[in-house]
Amino acid sequence: MADMVGKERRILVAVDEGEESAHALSWCLKNVISENSKDTLVLLYVIPPRVVYPALDGTGYLFSSDILAAMDKYGTDVADCVIEKAKRTCKDLNDVKVETRVERGDPRDVICQMAEKLGADVLVMGSRGYGLIKRALLGSVSNHCVQNVKCPVLIVKKPKSTAGNK
Amino acid sequence: MADMVGKERRILVAVDEGEESAHALSWCLKNVISENSKDTLVLLYVIPPRVVYPALDGTGYLFSSDILAAMDKYGTDVADCVIEKAKRTCKDLNDVKVETRVERGDPRDVICQMAEKLGADVLVMGSRGYGLIKRALLGSVSNHCVQNVKCPVLIVKKPKSTAGNK
Repeated sequence: MADMVGKERRILVAVDEGEESAHALSWCLKNVISENSKDTLVLLYVIPPRVVYPALDGTGYLFSSDILAAMDKYGTDVADCVIEKAKRTCKDLNDVKVETRVERGDPRDVICQMAEKLGADVLVMGSRGYGLIKRALLGSVSNHCVQNVKCPVLIVKKPKSTAGNK
Repeated sequence: MADMVGKERRILVAVDEGEESAHALSWCLKNVISENSKDTLVLLYVIPPRVVYPALDGTGYLFSSDILAAMDKYGTDVADCVIEKAKRTCKDLNDVKVETRVERGDPRDVICQMAEKLGADVLVMGSRGYGLIKRALLGSVSNHCVQNVKCPVLIVKKPKSTAGNK
């Protein structure tokens, strides 16, 4: 019973630009993180690959390098913004160490790999991350993680209103 | 930030006869339940419908009423056993209220309904409940719940060994 008590837990929270992700993080802070614990909270944002966008032009080869560079810049800007917002949400944590990671790749794979690599004790995420278009192209990130991550996975849905019409 | 602090949370744990379910409950006690909280822990066991067994005779109509009654008795005995074991796991909780529920039906539907009905703040379960045969017939209970339950869902897998060959 006591093997986790006092142990440093690594809690990996996959964040993205959506409201549900913000809600998942808040819920985690209130319900999973212990204020006086040795928990480490790792905020992970995965910049999806460009392969998400080419579908918009149908071929993937019509965009100029300028546009592609602008897309990459956009991806990085979004990452900065998401991570900053997530860090602000965590600013009231006293003893909990907060780390941030930004990675590139298919969020489904990267989140699973990071959970493993970081030795996460639990992975926390929203159920409908990465927006409608990306989700349609990438498939459900949360479903994939529930299937493939070995550590416990906590899927937090935003109540009613915006995310309620499942 | 403070809307959940001090609030009585209802934590619904779906238990079954498997090791993974036992592990999920233990993990929940160590990582989700706060000792000095007003949390209420609800242990739920769902007795699957008889429809799970008829597949064994191919028709569903070959069993005598004696055998069917024996099956029902078996279902109830398993329920008692699972709930007793789960309660023993929780015996060291001091301030946390522990309630138990035994229901009948398709575990996928009943768990979702109970999460809603009881106003659960979080649903905790293993990822591979209800054994191989029942799962093959019923489909994955945890997948269904992740898709359909509105509250946060925590899926806990048993590490390596028995449940590791995903």
